[in-house]
Amino acid sequence: MELLEAMNWRYAAKKMNGQKVPAEKLNTILEAIRLSASSAGLQPYTVVVIDNHELKGKIHELACPQPQVVEGSHLLVFASWTNVEAAQIDAYMQLIADTRGVSAESLTPFSDSIKGGILSKTPEDRFIWAARQAYIALGSGLIAAALEHVDATPMEGFNAAALDEILDLPAKGLKSVALLALGYRDEEKDFLSKAPKVRRARKDLFIELT
Amino acid sequence: MELLEAMNWRYAAKKMNGQKVPAEKLNTILEAIRLSASSAGLQPYTVVVIDNHELKGKIHELACPQPQVVEGSHLLVFASWTNVEAAQIDAYMQLIADTRGVSAESLTPFSDSIKGGILSKTPEDRFIWAARQAYIALGSGLIAAALEHVDATPMEGFNAAALDEILDLPAKGLKSVALLALGYRDEEKDFLSKAPKVRRARKDLFIELT
Repeated sequence: MELLEAMNWRYAAKKMNGQKVPAEKLNTILEAIRLSASSAGLQPYTVVVIDNHELKGKIHELACPQPQVVEGSHLLVFASWTNVEAAQIDAYMQLIADTRGVSAESLTPFSDSIKGGILSKTPEDRFIWAARQAYIALGSGLIAAALEHVDATPMEGFNAAALDEILDLPAKGLKSVALLALGYRDEEKDFLSKAPKVRRARKDLFIELT
Repeated sequence: MELLEAMNWRYAAKKMNGQKVPAEKLNTILEAIRLSASSAGLQPYTVVVIDNHELKGKIHELACPQPQVVEGSHLLVFASWTNVEAAQIDAYMQLIADTRGVSAESLTPFSDSIKGGILSKTPEDRFIWAARQAYIALGSGLIAAALEHVDATPMEGFNAAALDEILDLPAKGLKSVALLALGYRDEEKDFLSKAPKVRRARKDLFIELT
């Protein structure tokens, strides 16, 4: 199956060759991220898409510095909502109403249910929840890239507070949770480019109860 | 593109029809989960795959009760490691050594780097981190199911502590973070089966910096 082939082909490239990802492929990857599932469909995150050499250079310094940040074509920053509030849920209800041609009032039971579930959490727990949703989208981006034969390296090792300042994320109610460098592996320079994939065996990863 | 078609086709079915997912399709979905990326490749989670009517019935009572738990074919429980410790990282190094035919000693710098990053976190932060990784795998499962035209409904609304007891997860160092019901939508009974998908527009979900 094409999906499994692509997932076997992909790995987190440690060195990239600077080649640009064509707009069409980038659009497919972003569309897969956009279509990702999230709890209640709320998509409590924003993804910053960076194709600016100077900006990538600044972020590189804050990211260990991992070469893919500057050797990649585009750098995606997944940033979750720092505080989910009623206004965002109301805006989502309006989006549902507009998309489906129903009244916002008819969605009140759904809205109340989401508000009851999310707004009863502490701000810290809301962020934990929002970050998890962003990771579903990150997973979609990884798969979409692999199917397009674009390399994608997720990174958590970076100075999030400093990155957030550079991108003005706190003012937008956002906090970065993961980076994703999109580009093309440098097969010769990356010692991992030919290494067999390491994953726990099915019997070790799953508990099957029948 | 097939991926985007599948992602547009999928939704979180609210009613399922009881039809079984064939073993071949289930295997593909589990393999996509197994091949998922995770931070440092550590896969800090286990996935419980349940195909037992009585057990699904018990879990149903703890899950709001959402009908997909019992109307679905298989129920997956994503459970993250409650405490990542050196022993697990050492076991992972041994797996890398065995898979790639290198000595465990040669992996010491990588092992030290992972241990430095993860073991310096508090136990709470390790779990937050581990749960995020499970959500990447959840995202892979959603996409693999959609490509197989199998419905997949993720659920967070359940009594995790009670579920964990039923599955004996605490003794295994695991805590459930999400459920995924696999099965087939009941188009007639599910009022959402024909509803247009609601997602934020590209301009609202992304900030593009060039």
